[in-house]
Amino acid sequence: MSLLSPSRRLRETPFSAGVKAAGVKAYTVYNRMLLPTVFDDVERDYHHLKNHVQVWDVSVERQVELIGPDASKLMQLLTPRDLTKMQEDQCYYVPIVDQKGRMLNDPVALKHSETRWWISIADSDLLLWVKGLAIGMGLDVDVFEPDVAPLAVQGPRSGQLMERIFGATVHDIRFFRQKRLSFGDTSFIVARSGYSKQGGFEIYVEDRRYAMPLWNALFEAGQDLHVRAGCPNLIERIESGLLSYGNDMSMENTPFECGLDKFCNAPETVDFIGKESLRIEAETGPSRKIRAVAIGGAPVSATTTAWPLFRGGQTVGQITSAAWSPDFQTNVAIAMVESGSWDAGTEMMADTPEGQRTATVQTGFWT
Amino acid sequence: MSLLSPSRRLRETPFSAGVKAAGVKAYTVYNRMLLPTVFDDVERDYHHLKNHVQVWDVSVERQVELIGPDASKLMQLLTPRDLTKMQEDQCYYVPIVDQKGRMLNDPVALKHSETRWWISIADSDLLLWVKGLAIGMGLDVDVFEPDVAPLAVQGPRSGQLMERIFGATVHDIRFFRQKRLSFGDTSFIVARSGYSKQGGFEIYVEDRRYAMPLWNALFEAGQDLHVRAGCPNLIERIESGLLSYGNDMSMENTPFECGLDKFCNAPETVDFIGKESLRIEAETGPSRKIRAVAIGGAPVSATTTAWPLFRGGQTVGQITSAAWSPDFQTNVAIAMVESGSWDAGTEMMADTPEGQRTATVQTGFWT
Repeated sequence: MSLLSPSRRLRETPFSAGVKAAGVKAYTVYNRMLLPTVFDDVERDYHHLKNHVQVWDVSVERQVELIGPDASKLMQLLTPRDLTKMQEDQCYYVPIVDQKGRMLNDPVALKHSETRWWISIADSDLLLWVKGLAIGMGLDVDVFEPDVAPLAVQGPRSGQLMERIFGATVHDIRFFRQKRLSFGDTSFIVARSGYSKQGGFEIYVEDRRYAMPLWNALFEAGQDLHVRAGCPNLIERIESGLLSYGNDMSMENTPFECGLDKFCNAPETVDFIGKESLRIEAETGPSRKIRAVAIGGAPVSATTTAWPLFRGGQTVGQITSAAWSPDFQTNVAIAMVESGSWDAGTEMMADTPEGQRTATVQTGFWT
Repeated sequence: MSLLSPSRRLRETPFSAGVKAAGVKAYTVYNRMLLPTVFDDVERDYHHLKNHVQVWDVSVERQVELIGPDASKLMQLLTPRDLTKMQEDQCYYVPIVDQKGRMLNDPVALKHSETRWWISIADSDLLLWVKGLAIGMGLDVDVFEPDVAPLAVQGPRSGQLMERIFGATVHDIRFFRQKRLSFGDTSFIVARSGYSKQGGFEIYVEDRRYAMPLWNALFEAGQDLHVRAGCPNLIERIESGLLSYGNDMSMENTPFECGLDKFCNAPETVDFIGKESLRIEAETGPSRKIRAVAIGGAPVSATTTAWPLFRGGQTVGQITSAAWSPDFQTNVAIAMVESGSWDAGTEMMADTPEGQRTATVQTGFWT
């Protein structure tokens, strides 16, 4: 790993004191903010996540707030997903595309009301896109980044820990639904969501002064549950097929390429940016798709660039994320694979930093 | 310093092979791309920059290309700077503001023609702002990130080195002007510009296949000039008063607060976003301004958060960047200081990680 020079531009978070005290070993930079990547080591963090409960500083999931009479109109313009039936306690994973139907972000939208939304973003300045559109179209809506820092509680024992802080009502929150729950003299939106498939919650901490009190409360309450500080885990998220914007997809890709077809369901009567481009691609179908791929041989190193995939002397795609899976005893990977090579069982060769390896398309991710 | 986990999302550059071979010691992340911060150590890099010539991988200065009939109209909408008299060989430093007159980026604009521009950006996804506006306003212009990676040649002997690659014509390029010059079977735009005050050039390398050949040619030609790989130097840029978006200013600040008044010179007849807000602030004047500040005592550590400035028990501003200057034997700093405390000679106290220190407003930067 390289060294990262500190600066104010790479923002600390309201939980940074807790993260440092917990012995964070490495970071990535996400939305110009520090996101922990390792506490113990990636494999031990992985086993712990799958067996216990972890508290994650995911403040990097910055919120874009839309508030005003045109908030819902603008929100629908941003995404091919049909928002017309969305209820006020729902969270929606929403592909955001440009006029060519290319991915600009893959955030989670949270509806406060018809006139107020939050978009919990992946790694790009979606704020600038939304503001630019709002101003360009002369919409009556304010767009800004509020003082909100999400904290995730993830792992099979997350329900137990959350109950101790917020009460048994946490169990009533269904997947990708949210509820406002009390904490001391304040309250937070608590959603059943998170960037792992081990179960869990995300707490949208409004007002940074409440961040460390919540962090401390969770650690105090969870001692007997072996609660630990954690972070999105590279191995677990690849096994689970959780895509990473900037790694597995970018402004080069369409939602269909990313397997997000079911989130492109806005009816003909609904207007959104990229509608015509996506309509055409829906007819012809994408020319490449994201696939789960197993890479043969010993553990590979991290992907710092895409690794080309070959078949019969032709380039047929690229590996975008890879890690050794202790549970599945293979290198698990996410790849963008071209039509003709994307069927399960297809064998390709991958150019890895450790040399050429076999790469086999799987029927699905390792969940 | 912390460790940085590698990933494809934190993009390598077309010069990464050269940067690694040159022994890069640390990076920052800028526009989701790796920017070297240290080669030898920050002080030795600083002395070398001031005495010799360095080659910098500044690929992180991503370009936003505007092409189409409405390119110039859109470009003028983006900035309060008057572009009407800009000639086609000029580079303009252009504050980019939102409708409230708040800074979104402080890039350099390069005019290819009335229908084609590049914006060489600081650290924010300006692409999304420009695309959002273009689509929202229905303008006839394409906006995208082209395959361009700037390489800077900086230091007092940069002219000598550049002449050996591009010929004596490099000396004819005036400050913030550019010229297209041949290199092998291609040509690059070469500008007299760069993020230091030691003199130098920026070469806009189009097509990444030419990146390492140019890098190698510069190092081969410059051996007797003690050419070295370098990078923007924290000490030198603070001494020189070169602001850093995300460190010294953000979406919280206006160009007037940042001392960029002279770049807010569009005449009344010119339309741009934020015009009304800036007109009001020009009348009342800003309530805080960027100042050069000397911090007393021994060398301070890097600013990972803003350090509050106090005077008479009141908060009167904050230090946003600081470093020990070997040449001036003081801690040089950039601060945002409130009205009433911003006059040269004003003494304040700064809360640094090393305790309270005196902080004195200077008449100007250390150039």
